[in-house]
Amino acid sequence: MTSINIIGTGNVAWHMAQAVYAAENYSLQGVAGRSEKSLEDFKSLARESTDIHKLTPSDITMIIVSDDAIKKVAEKIPYTSGVFIHTSGSVSINALESYVNHGVFYPLQSFSKVVPVNFKEVPICIEASSKSNLRVLEELGFALSEKVAPISSTQRKKLHLAAVFVNNFSNHCFTIAQELCDQQEVPFDLLRPLLNTTANKALSHKPSEVQTGPAKRNDQETIASHINQLSNPMQQEVYKILSEAITQYYGKKL
Amino acid sequence: MTSINIIGTGNVAWHMAQAVYAAENYSLQGVAGRSEKSLEDFKSLARESTDIHKLTPSDITMIIVSDDAIKKVAEKIPYTSGVFIHTSGSVSINALESYVNHGVFYPLQSFSKVVPVNFKEVPICIEASSKSNLRVLEELGFALSEKVAPISSTQRKKLHLAAVFVNNFSNHCFTIAQELCDQQEVPFDLLRPLLNTTANKALSHKPSEVQTGPAKRNDQETIASHINQLSNPMQQEVYKILSEAITQYYGKKL
Repeated sequence: MTSINIIGTGNVAWHMAQAVYAAENYSLQGVAGRSEKSLEDFKSLARESTDIHKLTPSDITMIIVSDDAIKKVAEKIPYTSGVFIHTSGSVSINALESYVNHGVFYPLQSFSKVVPVNFKEVPICIEASSKSNLRVLEELGFALSEKVAPISSTQRKKLHLAAVFVNNFSNHCFTIAQELCDQQEVPFDLLRPLLNTTANKALSHKPSEVQTGPAKRNDQETIASHINQLSNPMQQEVYKILSEAITQYYGKKL
Repeated sequence: MTSINIIGTGNVAWHMAQAVYAAENYSLQGVAGRSEKSLEDFKSLARESTDIHKLTPSDITMIIVSDDAIKKVAEKIPYTSGVFIHTSGSVSINALESYVNHGVFYPLQSFSKVVPVNFKEVPICIEASSKSNLRVLEELGFALSEKVAPISSTQRKKLHLAAVFVNNFSNHCFTIAQELCDQQEVPFDLLRPLLNTTANKALSHKPSEVQTGPAKRNDQETIASHINQLSNPMQQEVYKILSEAITQYYGKKL
């Protein structure tokens, strides 16, 4: 049995704790958080739920806190044995170099407490301070998920940035569409089948190979008419830049 | 039996012809196209496949050609009986006003010949020159799909614009993510589960309610670091504008 401590009680910690709890050959030993209240949800999963200073040593210690808190929190851990890992997309592995055995265990998914996650389908990006530590993380990775990939700090940083485009920016495009529907009092539901198809195409093809629309065709008449229909200057800007980016990408420079 | 002629042989015409062919109480009478070659695929579906000048009158005539060709093509039809409709998102119903009975039948979906479409799930936006014509289109709509909505020309134009945000722009965000992965030689597959979750959230929630990320939090440090990591000036612009739009939308003005 490999014992695991988790430090942190946010969304990622919550889903990670459940996945570790359910994994064979791993036991969730302790969860540490700043307040009694934040620890409540974890009480049924871990043997210890406590203040960080009272944690007892485990084989693996996962620091699952906000990026800027990782170093500070790591310094408070009252033991030095085992492997210490964080789960951030953008923080370097070096943040934990004060521990001999350290690494990164980054689950590439968007977590919220209310939406259940099938952890088996969450890609885990791993990086470690030594080959044997990498093996430890790989084993843990495959106990929780079907997809585990060794990814360097540089690669992980770019992946994290790419995730902003995949999730944050596409979702804001959906939000603008939702606003346009609201303006005309038509239900956004009319666009949901298209949204679904858009995602399905990008799931099974290279996104660049399934691009369509006026910007791809460099259809300046439609583009001008669309910009004209937008009353919000910020939405106009978004429309202009994305159209320019698409037209440029497909090689039909203005 | 209601007879239908289709003029046009592109992607939308292809999917429409198949849906009409399969619909109860409707018969696909004729398909007209400019070349023998373009008509070949339709030969097994329609009784007549021919040049537009040789089409024989039908109860409903669907003009499924590019936006700027609709008016010109309509003038060539060798009869005036029945209801004449086009299927464009952005062309006004008035384009067909030379016919007493006319309307619009806009399937809100992205069609390509290689990807099969479940037409039952394609929302059909209808508009007509009279109440009785609207009833004709509604009946046809529900014979092909489960979702039929009366939508005015103004509303339809905005929906078509919104569709650009939902499909074209989100897909280009995926393309930029794909490029970033290529740069670092990491497989885009690592991001596909996130892409899937992003779409699923927007399918079951208001997109504005599931927004996350640095721009939403107005986390200027992460935003600056991300922009710094982008070597392509156009990608930098896209990142800046979308972040600004998100930050502004959620009320934390810069």
